[in-house]
Amino acid sequence: MAVYTALSEDEIAAFIDPLGLGALVSIRGIPGGIENTNYFVDTTTGRYVLTVFERLSAEELPFYLHLMKHLAARGIPVPDPVADAAGEILHAVKGKPAVIVNRLAGQSVRAPSPVQCRALGAMLARMHGAGGDYARYQPNPRGLAWWQETARLVRTFLTQEQKALLADELAFQEQVAASSGFAHLPRGPVHGDLFRDNVLFEGDALAGVFDFYFAGVDVLLFDIAVCLNDWCVADDGEDALRIEALLEGYESVRPLSAAERDLLPAMRRAGALRFWLSRLADLHLPREAAMLNAHDPAHFERLLRTVREEGLMRA
Amino acid sequence: MAVYTALSEDEIAAFIDPLGLGALVSIRGIPGGIENTNYFVDTTTGRYVLTVFERLSAEELPFYLHLMKHLAARGIPVPDPVADAAGEILHAVKGKPAVIVNRLAGQSVRAPSPVQCRALGAMLARMHGAGGDYARYQPNPRGLAWWQETARLVRTFLTQEQKALLADELAFQEQVAASSGFAHLPRGPVHGDLFRDNVLFEGDALAGVFDFYFAGVDVLLFDIAVCLNDWCVADDGEDALRIEALLEGYESVRPLSAAERDLLPAMRRAGALRFWLSRLADLHLPREAAMLNAHDPAHFERLLRTVREEGLMRA
Repeated sequence: MAVYTALSEDEIAAFIDPLGLGALVSIRGIPGGIENTNYFVDTTTGRYVLTVFERLSAEELPFYLHLMKHLAARGIPVPDPVADAAGEILHAVKGKPAVIVNRLAGQSVRAPSPVQCRALGAMLARMHGAGGDYARYQPNPRGLAWWQETARLVRTFLTQEQKALLADELAFQEQVAASSGFAHLPRGPVHGDLFRDNVLFEGDALAGVFDFYFAGVDVLLFDIAVCLNDWCVADDGEDALRIEALLEGYESVRPLSAAERDLLPAMRRAGALRFWLSRLADLHLPREAAMLNAHDPAHFERLLRTVREEGLMRA
Repeated sequence: MAVYTALSEDEIAAFIDPLGLGALVSIRGIPGGIENTNYFVDTTTGRYVLTVFERLSAEELPFYLHLMKHLAARGIPVPDPVADAAGEILHAVKGKPAVIVNRLAGQSVRAPSPVQCRALGAMLARMHGAGGDYARYQPNPRGLAWWQETARLVRTFLTQEQKALLADELAFQEQVAASSGFAHLPRGPVHGDLFRDNVLFEGDALAGVFDFYFAGVDVLLFDIAVCLNDWCVADDGEDALRIEALLEGYESVRPLSAAERDLLPAMRRAGALRFWLSRLADLHLPREAAMLNAHDPAHFERLLRTVREEGLMRA
C-alpha cells in the first residue's frame, strides 16, 4: 500500500516529544502494509517504528498492544510499545490511534533453511509459553465464525469447482468443531498470521516477531499449522526437512500431545482455508480503493487441495 | 552465597510501590550469586528479579543497566530494568543501589548440545551487533591491567610451576598487546562472563542472557573465547562439534575476519588466564567472610595449559 496517513517531520517530532525518545533524526514511510500506515523513526536514542492504525479502533487495540508488551517483558523479541509518562501505550495522531515501538534488527527470509525453521518452531513454542499467563481475552478474529461469514460473501465470485471445494471444506471444519475436535487442545494467545514476512532473522538467529494484529485466543495448534503452511511449502510442494525441523524446534520447548498430532492435518486444512478466504475477500471485497496489491488467492486454494489430499504429517 | 541484604515482604512491597508493577504476591531469596543479593519477586503484573548490589556502587552501575536496556530494546532477551515515573532505572534499598528487572523464562544447561551452542553463537553475534551503537563507555574491567595487578596479588600463593605458567602467559599476552595484536579487531560492549550459568534455554531456544556486571568495551573476540572455553570444553577435553556449532552460529550473523580467526587461539589463552586469575583471587583473597563457595581455580589452570599446547582452532 501507499502510506495512508501522511505525517510531516514536525508532526512526528511533536508526537514523540512527550515520550522521552530524544530528538528526531529522520523519518521514512514504509510501503507494504495493508492495514496500517508505518514510519521508520530514528531519534537520538534509537530506532523506532510508528504505526497509525487505519483498520483497528482504539477499543480493539489494547488486546494486541498489551500482548506485545507482555511477550517483550518475557524475553520474546517482539516490538515493545513505548509508554508515555502516565504509562499509556496507545497514543493518537491526526485523530487516529497510533503506537510507537522499538525497531527490531534483521530481515525476513524468503527461503528459510531447516535451521531457521527449527528456530522458528522453538520461538513459537516459547511465545506460546510466555503468553500462557496473559490476562486479556479475545477470540481469534479469523476463526470459524469469520470463515462462515466470509465464505458467504465471496461465494458468488467463485467457479462451480471452487464453490464445491469451499462448501466441502467448511462442512468438514464445522463437523470437527461440532465433534469438539479442537476444543480440548492447549489454548492461549496465538499470533494467527506468522508468515515469513512477519519474522526477522539475523543469520540463523531469529531476531524478531511482529504484526500481532490478527492475534487472539485459540488453540495453539492453529499457529503451528499456519507456520507449516507458509514456511515449509515450496513451489514444488511440501518440504519434509523443513516440516520436521519446525516441529522438532517447537517440541524441544513444548512437546505436542497425541491429540495435537492427530489433529494437525485437519488444522493445516483450517489454516489453508482461513488464508484462502482472506485472500478471496481482499481480491473481491476491497474495502477501499487504496487497498491494492491483494495477494493471489490461488496459492491457498492449491494448498488447501494439497493438504486435503495428502493429510500430511510427520511420521 | 547466602542472601546478604535481608529484606522483608513489607520492605519489598514498599520498594516496588512507585514502579507500577502491581501488588506483591510473593518473594523468595535466590542463593548462588557472589556479588549481589537477589530476590524473585512475583506481583500481580508479572515475575521480576530484585537485585541489591553488594560490590558495585551507584556510580558504576549505569554502564551495565543502560546496556541491558539498550539490548532489550533491540530484541535481545536480557533483563530490562524497570524505570520509575521519572524514567530512573537505578533505585536504592537500605542505602544500597538496587534494580528490578523482568524475570526471564528458561533454565541454564550444564551439557549444551551442538544445537544449543549454535544458538548461543548466533545470539552472541546478535548481541554484539545490537551493542554497536551503545553510547556509554568503560573498558573491560577484567582486561590486561587487571590481570597484571591480580597476578601480583595471588602470585605468593602459587607453586613454582604455577608461577612459571602465570609469568609466561602474562608475558605472552603483554607481547600480543605490545605488538597491537588485538588492537585492530572489531570492538564493542562485551558481556565478558558468558558462562552457561548466565544463559537460559527453553528446549533448543535461547531464552535469556543475564548478569552483565562484568561487561565493558573490548574486542568482540574476547566474548567468543570465553564462550568457547566454557561451553565447548567437557571433562575429557575439547568438543570439536560444539566448537564448530558455536562458531557457525556466530558467523551466520557476523562472519569473523581473517585476523580474528588468526588471533582466536591467543584470545582463548587470554580468556583462560582471566578466569584462572579471578578464581585464584576468589580463593586466596576473599573480600569478606560471606564470599564462600569459591570455584576451584584448577579447572582454568588446566584449560590454560590445554589451549597453550594445542592452539586449538577450527580447521
